[in-house]
Amino acid sequence: MAADKKVHPDNESKEKMATEKDCDALVTSMDTQDEVKWDAHRKSFAVGAGILQIVMIILYACFADYADAAKETHAGTHDAAPSELDHYYPLYQDVHVMIFVGFGFLMTFLKKYGFSSVGYNFVLSAFVIQWGILVTSFSGQVYNVINNDGEFAKVPLSIEMLIEGDFAAGAVLITMGAVLGKTTPLQLLVIAFFEIIFYAANFTIGSTHLQTVDMGGSMFVHTFGAYFGLGVSRALSKSKKDASSGEVKSHDLNGSSTTSDMFAMIGTLFLWMFWPSFNGALAHGSQQHRVFVNTVLSLSACCVTAFAADNLLRPKHKFSMVSIQNATLAGGVAVGSSADLVIQPWGAIAIGFAAGLLSVIGYVYIQPWLETKLSLDDTCGVYNLHGMPGILGGLGGAISSAAAIQENYGKNIGKVFAARAPVSEGGEGRTAGDQASFQVAALAITITIAVTSGIITGLIAKRSCLQPPGVTNEDMAMPRNTWYNDELYWETEEQEPVVKKYDAASQD
Amino acid sequence: MAADKKVHPDNESKEKMATEKDCDALVTSMDTQDEVKWDAHRKSFAVGAGILQIVMIILYACFADYADAAKETHAGTHDAAPSELDHYYPLYQDVHVMIFVGFGFLMTFLKKYGFSSVGYNFVLSAFVIQWGILVTSFSGQVYNVINNDGEFAKVPLSIEMLIEGDFAAGAVLITMGAVLGKTTPLQLLVIAFFEIIFYAANFTIGSTHLQTVDMGGSMFVHTFGAYFGLGVSRALSKSKKDASSGEVKSHDLNGSSTTSDMFAMIGTLFLWMFWPSFNGALAHGSQQHRVFVNTVLSLSACCVTAFAADNLLRPKHKFSMVSIQNATLAGGVAVGSSADLVIQPWGAIAIGFAAGLLSVIGYVYIQPWLETKLSLDDTCGVYNLHGMPGILGGLGGAISSAAAIQENYGKNIGKVFAARAPVSEGGEGRTAGDQASFQVAALAITITIAVTSGIITGLIAKRSCLQPPGVTNEDMAMPRNTWYNDELYWETEEQEPVVKKYDAASQD
Amino acid sequence: MAADKKVHPDNESKEKMATEKDCDALVTSMDTQDEVKWDAHRKSFAVGAGILQIVMIILYACFADYADAAKETHAGTHDAAPSELDHYYPLYQDVHVMIFVGFGFLMTFLKKYGFSSVGYNFVLSAFVIQWGILVTSFSGQVYNVINNDGEFAKVPLSIEMLIEGDFAAGAVLITMGAVLGKTTPLQLLVIAFFEIIFYAANFTIGSTHLQTVDMGGSMFVHTFGAYFGLGVSRALSKSKKDASSGEVKSHDLNGSSTTSDMFAMIGTLFLWMFWPSFNGALAHGSQQHRVFVNTVLSLSACCVTAFAADNLLRPKHKFSMVSIQNATLAGGVAVGSSADLVIQPWGAIAIGFAAGLLSVIGYVYIQPWLETKLSLDDTCGVYNLHGMPGILGGLGGAISSAAAIQENYGKNIGKVFAARAPVSEGGEGRTAGDQASFQVAALAITITIAVTSGIITGLIAKRSCLQPPGVTNEDMAMPRNTWYNDELYWETEEQEPVVKKYDAASQD
Repeated sequence: MAADKKVHPDNESKEKMATEKDCDALVTSMDTQDEVKWDAHRKSFAVGAGILQIVMIILYACFADYADAAKETHAGTHDAAPSELDHYYPLYQDVHVMIFVGFGFLMTFLKKYGFSSVGYNFVLSAFVIQWGILVTSFSGQVYNVINNDGEFAKVPLSIEMLIEGDFAAGAVLITMGAVLGKTTPLQLLVIAFFEIIFYAANFTIGSTHLQTVDMGGSMFVHTFGAYFGLGVSRALSKSKKDASSGEVKSHDLNGSSTTSDMFAMIGTLFLWMFWPSFNGALAHGSQQHRVFVNTVLSLSACCVTAFAADNLLRPKHKFSMVSIQNATLAGGVAVGSSADLVIQPWGAIAIGFAAGLLSVIGYVYIQPWLETKLSLDDTCGVYNLHGMPGILGGLGGAISSAAAIQENYGKNIGKVFAARAPVSEGGEGRTAGDQASFQVAALAITITIAVTSGIITGLIAKRSCLQPPGVTNEDMAMPRNTWYNDELYWETEEQEPVVKKYDAASQD
Repeated sequence: MAADKKVHPDNESKEKMATEKDCDALVTSMDTQDEVKWDAHRKSFAVGAGILQIVMIILYACFADYADAAKETHAGTHDAAPSELDHYYPLYQDVHVMIFVGFGFLMTFLKKYGFSSVGYNFVLSAFVIQWGILVTSFSGQVYNVINNDGEFAKVPLSIEMLIEGDFAAGAVLITMGAVLGKTTPLQLLVIAFFEIIFYAANFTIGSTHLQTVDMGGSMFVHTFGAYFGLGVSRALSKSKKDASSGEVKSHDLNGSSTTSDMFAMIGTLFLWMFWPSFNGALAHGSQQHRVFVNTVLSLSACCVTAFAADNLLRPKHKFSMVSIQNATLAGGVAVGSSADLVIQPWGAIAIGFAAGLLSVIGYVYIQPWLETKLSLDDTCGVYNLHGMPGILGGLGGAISSAAAIQENYGKNIGKVFAARAPVSEGGEGRTAGDQASFQVAALAITITIAVTSGIITGLIAKRSCLQPPGVTNEDMAMPRNTWYNDELYWETEEQEPVVKKYDAASQD
Repeated sequence: MAADKKVHPDNESKEKMATEKDCDALVTSMDTQDEVKWDAHRKSFAVGAGILQIVMIILYACFADYADAAKETHAGTHDAAPSELDHYYPLYQDVHVMIFVGFGFLMTFLKKYGFSSVGYNFVLSAFVIQWGILVTSFSGQVYNVINNDGEFAKVPLSIEMLIEGDFAAGAVLITMGAVLGKTTPLQLLVIAFFEIIFYAANFTIGSTHLQTVDMGGSMFVHTFGAYFGLGVSRALSKSKKDASSGEVKSHDLNGSSTTSDMFAMIGTLFLWMFWPSFNGALAHGSQQHRVFVNTVLSLSACCVTAFAADNLLRPKHKFSMVSIQNATLAGGVAVGSSADLVIQPWGAIAIGFAAGLLSVIGYVYIQPWLETKLSLDDTCGVYNLHGMPGILGGLGGAISSAAAIQENYGKNIGKVFAARAPVSEGGEGRTAGDQASFQVAALAITITIAVTSGIITGLIAKRSCLQPPGVTNEDMAMPRNTWYNDELYWETEEQEPVVKKYDAASQD
């Protein structure tokens, strides 16, 4: 393939591609001392992950038990009608597929970072499921204890808790998307560890304290995960801006190949198909029915719109896989907060239309601007897929709440919006306008907590004990010439020189 | 890889490969004027898709509403037992996966057309879900109004309607398979727009008017989609036949690579696994139970038979991935019409056996014959996977209907075949023979409507306003040297010359 | 890519790679006589598979019928509450995905054996579903007839039987993993044919006769499949040991590429996600609830542990995809026997931790040792993923049984362990210690039957009528230079010389 392009390499291109040369050089020309340092650095992951896993055994031994429905001794559970479990389990598995295959393969779009993308997605999620179940449950208990509304009890493990664990993993994976390729595996574990604490706190404030509705997690999962990730990213690495020239230098491994783009589409499609399950996993009855209808319509409209907008806005009107892989999903994010509300089918389609358009504009115009102006690096463009559509979703939830009238909800309005039930029935007697204000407040609080805690977590993650060797610039978590590259942490075929040599030999 | 094959290029091969050279030439040597025309042509997709999507918002605002089960105000829906939704939703998601991942990846087998295959599959389906729900529902309403059996009402959106939307997408994707690689994305949208109208009309005639049974859509989805696609294909491009020599010239991009074949297997397997859900999504009770048993048995027998037949009939007795990817699925198509009937387990296996054999014979012998004799181009061989097995299925449904005796169905015969119920119970009192005749009639009508409307739609799709620049031959929808190539409409890595130059430079 | 590596091929590498050269040579330099022999050999698959499939039609016609729940004439089945089917079907589809996509893609990790891996996985499973349903059902009937506890009846086909068919396929696919790349497709069919008979016998002895619990199949599926596979492998090919030098010669096609490793991760993730469905498909009520919680926790802990252990134990502390693809799954195997028992959440996590560690140690240390010391070839390392974790699971089941006290199970202890019910209630009045002894006995019997029958089956499979041409060493099932290579049985792009020539020509 390459032989026919040997002639006339121009100097400009040589310079631009310096980083790739650096990467190769780094791996192949490391001297023995460097190797020793890198080996020790890599090993620190085993220590960190091993300790965390052992801690999990201890924490679960002390603080967790089966929920009643999973106990043999609970009256009637053995022969109970299976409907509860039958109801949740298929939804749980859909969400599970989104977390592991959806996010996992979506992030494999980088041409030399597939092992890391799918691998770190895997191990982070497996850790967060365990950690997230404990922390989210504990956070709710703390709130109740503070309000004299309960006592500490063992975390009751059930299918609902497994779903909560996957939701927590979703937030962490969105964050991972913002810093993909620029963090070590141990840094990712540390980020996940802290993120879950802030995630749980924010969820408790917004959902339990403010009593806002966010069925699909537009605010508490997507907006939180995205802004937390941008906070981490900003704290980890200052900028792509070349200090000397002021130009943004792109990293040449920060791109896709045909094959890696195809793998990423596996992720996109599973996310897209199962998004109704994500938005509706914990909904019931007619509410869940609306979630399914609204989310499918919003996503369908978003997909068509994203194709059209991408075609319109890209140079030469060619589709870019980056938009197709991501912006087509924005409709699921944006309809999240309001998916269970009576927004009417056309409303769902309109939300999807707006989200698709906004997300493509994000990829084409806003992301380059953020990189240049705010030195904000965002590998997967989570700002365009989760950040802006998440805010759109949060505002959509507020507007839908403001428009939630008796006519559309009948006597059930207090079941959909708990705080709108009369005080006599255990609610707060909020009006539609009250509820909308609380929704906006929850959104603002989410963004504030996410950015702040993200920056703090980023500063923790780049402490020297977590950094790989060779980080000279204080602003970097990893040396720039090791970014987006599987070879640093994985055995890859590139590192089997014997085979390569044989190929060459056979051609003589 | 290539360097060792530099010697002795023979002239024959150079000539045969002319089309690939032409493709490269087309993209790299376009002059400015061509570029401007292509840019304008590509942009027309954005206009067309954008308008269609906006029209959808308006149509849904005017003509659609939630079904009662999804309305909060409907008595008892909020706390209703979730069984209805729990029953349909997992089946819906299986069908959903078939449409987006199944069909989407099955069509990625072409070596340079992966982005287009999975991408157009994605956007077409997302459009058809919206459009199909409206049109199929409306078609049924029109029939009822004509027969003074109802009034127009808003389309009631529910999980069943989402399944109907996916079925409609299935028919369109089968059609897309016939013309894959030879149509522009806007042409595909136009084809889908019209196909849905004829699809809905044919379904109403066959299912509502003639009261035939076709649980798995052998006739109304597979046969219709395939023959419609062949009609479109025949109208769009006359032939592969070289006018001067009379030989069939194969297009060298019309082939697979190892990697693209592996991606296609993802599609095959998800289609194969979830086919019982497709055939049984709308069945109930023991009928659905039979669908699952019969479809799994038929598909299993078909898979083994397709491997055996392909091994037997291919040159040198080597397996061909084309057959493995497609013919293994024919058992699902062929058992479709009769899957819910009492055909006995061995009957299901026999149908799968026949379908696998027939489909492989189609790929090995019939398709080349059709290309030469009828100038019929069929990129994915939908005739072999959906066309012939669909007819086999339709006839199987007729035979099973003729053999449907009281002994096997007891008092429920009127529940399985509505028209066989006595007139006193709302049926038509048909005999088994009557029902079989109606089944055959529905099959014949399906083929007739499909071919006719397919040709008409093909003629519409190749009108000059939809054609790309450079179409000189009136018979072509796209210039032949742009076929099967992602580069015309997608940003691909082949178009990043800087990176390539660097590769070359580093080797000096 | 290759051009820059032309210089300085070293001789050592040339020698090491002899096998790849041999493979190429074999295919391209075959003389006409060889070709004729190979063609005849390949065709024997069509004969074998075709006969088996026709036999299936006959056997099903004679010995199978719908179960009552799938019969239209059964009282009330048509309108029956769909809960039974709704309960099983989503679980069935998860298991189905594990069999076809999970195992299928997991085995595609070999760089030149993707078509064979996913293809043979496909056809073997499709055959075993049909054969396994008959044999497992028949085996249970034989046991009952011997014990005067029933008469022969037609196999009642239902969704539960379809799940049993998939479980049987699971055992066969584990066996296939041990001999992947070193057996012809017909040999695989023959192995599957015999394995199912021994598998069903062992299951009947362990489950029905000894009344042991093994909800997730740690013993009857995983341990059996793995040890059967090792038996077959040992009988088929003696060793990798080079007779002359005593060194283990690795086969250079016995490795992965970046792309094949990514495809394998699709398999890994679907197996990992749906493992709770495999372990719990046939469980009910609170028992099933515990299966889900325990299996998710065990797998999550196993994933984190496998990453940590692999990082710790591999050279240079780099992750190896082999471990990530396989060892992360060991937690599902190891918790299988006890997943439905009251092992407490921390117990599940501890089992996952132990399994992940053990499995990685298997891949890093034990497998190389087995290859050298016992001449035991195990392509996928099924001993590390299914063999050892299966035994760990079997022992875990025994320990959990010994610890199963009234306090944790209440009055339901006889529902979980049937033989522990008092004799008056149809049980055997076993104590906890009794039950544990039976569990250990079942494990020992499983290993014994598996190894013995595996060796016998291996000896059958390498009989000369099943061997390809050119097998000179009596110990081999296939000539070593044809191992791990799609080209022998599949049409591949490597065999399209015209295209290759064109590539070269264009570079001049």
